[in-house]
Amino acid sequence: MENDERIELDHGGGGYKSWQLLQEVRGILKSRGDWQNCEDDAAVYDLSHLVIPAPDRVEGKAPAACLPARQGIQSKLVFTSDGFIVDPIFFPGGDIGKIAMCGTINDLSVMGAKPLGISLSIVIEEGFPKKDLLKIIGSINKVSEESGVPVVTGDTKVTPKGKLDKIEITTSGVGITDKIIPNNGINPGDVIITSGDLGEHSVTLLASRFNYKTKLQTDSKPLNKDIEKVKDYLNACKDPTRGGLAANIVEMAEKSKVKIILDETTLPYKKEVIAVSELLGIDIFSLASEGRFIAAVSPDDKGQALAILRKFNPEAKIIGRAEKGSGVYLKTKLSALRPIEMPKGKLIPRIC
Amino acid sequence: MENDERIELDHGGGGYKSWQLLQEVRGILKSRGDWQNCEDDAAVYDLSHLVIPAPDRVEGKAPAACLPARQGIQSKLVFTSDGFIVDPIFFPGGDIGKIAMCGTINDLSVMGAKPLGISLSIVIEEGFPKKDLLKIIGSINKVSEESGVPVVTGDTKVTPKGKLDKIEITTSGVGITDKIIPNNGINPGDVIITSGDLGEHSVTLLASRFNYKTKLQTDSKPLNKDIEKVKDYLNACKDPTRGGLAANIVEMAEKSKVKIILDETTLPYKKEVIAVSELLGIDIFSLASEGRFIAAVSPDDKGQALAILRKFNPEAKIIGRAEKGSGVYLKTKLSALRPIEMPKGKLIPRIC
Repeated sequence: MENDERIELDHGGGGYKSWQLLQEVRGILKSRGDWQNCEDDAAVYDLSHLVIPAPDRVEGKAPAACLPARQGIQSKLVFTSDGFIVDPIFFPGGDIGKIAMCGTINDLSVMGAKPLGISLSIVIEEGFPKKDLLKIIGSINKVSEESGVPVVTGDTKVTPKGKLDKIEITTSGVGITDKIIPNNGINPGDVIITSGDLGEHSVTLLASRFNYKTKLQTDSKPLNKDIEKVKDYLNACKDPTRGGLAANIVEMAEKSKVKIILDETTLPYKKEVIAVSELLGIDIFSLASEGRFIAAVSPDDKGQALAILRKFNPEAKIIGRAEKGSGVYLKTKLSALRPIEMPKGKLIPRIC
Repeated sequence: MENDERIELDHGGGGYKSWQLLQEVRGILKSRGDWQNCEDDAAVYDLSHLVIPAPDRVEGKAPAACLPARQGIQSKLVFTSDGFIVDPIFFPGGDIGKIAMCGTINDLSVMGAKPLGISLSIVIEEGFPKKDLLKIIGSINKVSEESGVPVVTGDTKVTPKGKLDKIEITTSGVGITDKIIPNNGINPGDVIITSGDLGEHSVTLLASRFNYKTKLQTDSKPLNKDIEKVKDYLNACKDPTRGGLAANIVEMAEKSKVKIILDETTLPYKKEVIAVSELLGIDIFSLASEGRFIAAVSPDDKGQALAILRKFNPEAKIIGRAEKGSGVYLKTKLSALRPIEMPKGKLIPRIC
């Protein structure tokens, strides 16, 4: 009997417990209608069968007469949501508003979509300073301007004092694309790249929570423009937010049915990130980023993809390769293979 | 200086203070990109210019060669979000999951859209009973099955104990339509109809909060199938959730630039709803419903529209009429005109 089971922090951490709970919820919510990729960063709906010249429209199916007009119509709608409850809400390089915008823009972008618009749903604790709210809205607007993605709808609710810790933001987004970049597209032989060093978001937030001074800043940024420039080269792509590199690369490897070997000599973590993680006793592989992507690229394309990426992301590099098999391993400097698993232990709560 | 101003419960209540805050937020978040109707229940994006045969695609504009293939393409994407923090979370006839689904399905439906899919973002307090979560997910699934609208993506976060009151749910939805029903489409001469009696949701929740026994149940239900049957007759439509009939009819009248006269002899409130409201000292016009719509219908169509509606909603009726002018008034039984205004006083928090 599971009747007395309680929700724990790790059910929302992005690791194994989150995955277990999600499977249980999906077991109840079975219908996906005509949607695809519902287990990826965003769900996908093929618009082609909706867009039929009106006079020929027939409920539920496209009559033959419509086909010529539909030729070449390949646009897919991409849809996602992300909830943010971070502590602290203001931190070096950003705030809850910035990461709420980046998180959803990036979930659309890693699917290969051009984000069209964001919905902003805010729950505020009674007594929250209005100037802080307007500062957060200002951050949201800055990301909107930088990314070119407008906030087009939303909702605001207020909860009595003591019933919420300051503020919660849920962003949802819709995007459009002709070509989906799936989570499961890694082929044996592909190289694994990162768009930049990882984990600075988590470490910045934690350091800020403990009043520990560092020079680090959140790595959050909207990725849509970067990914647009290289999307033709990406076989699979994901942004390593909750659960970090470990959770996300393991998920990609499992879905793609490949083995991935990461190279310890090219690990994408700054010295200061490693130092703070060691000080706090946190596994670097589970540190979240809010403005980085990891992707699989065919060996023939790697030079071109990295050359483009490095123009605006000098830290972009190859961190490993895929081969036939299963599992994710870190090849150490001594050439031993250490398994990387989906985080199962206690994760860091409320970082994204 | 507004530096010390704090967020109050009424900033999220759906009345005048909510509207004021929204104007301030919109003043910062100016860009709407190519979206329209951003001040309605859902934002609208015209897909026609996106759907261009791929070989002819040119960044940013449709070349002339594409035009024949686009003829008749009129589909509009509709997008909305709604956050739910209700107390209690289980109440007669429903729970937070049911109203979270109905709220977003209905916001799409009142715009004339067919809902395509829902995104479900949940924030849970650590220690929340898992069986209660699964019960809520079961309610969500029931609405999904009844409405035919799948849950296709989402997010789950967990906040430490004491940092949230049990659970918060944000639903977002995308829908599609060839014809938008705007908030501002009321013409002088139109009649105002309701699909059923109003306010039972608010009263049920309040009675439940105070352990006051009534036979009332929440009126929450998905409206998509009902509205689909009559949408060709509706010039304007809205679901009177937060802020009730008062806030929503005033908004419609202002946007449509018409005067609306409601008739006291046909007020859409059950005796028990009125009785409980009087007992609790609440204005019935600000009571929320979660499964009703109000709409404007041309006089020539009213018979047909009501005949269809009454097949499945026997309470559907005419409650007033629009004429040239401005303001909303209640014509009393003694033929006096009492102004109905957007609620300015303390509203009932956490009912939807």
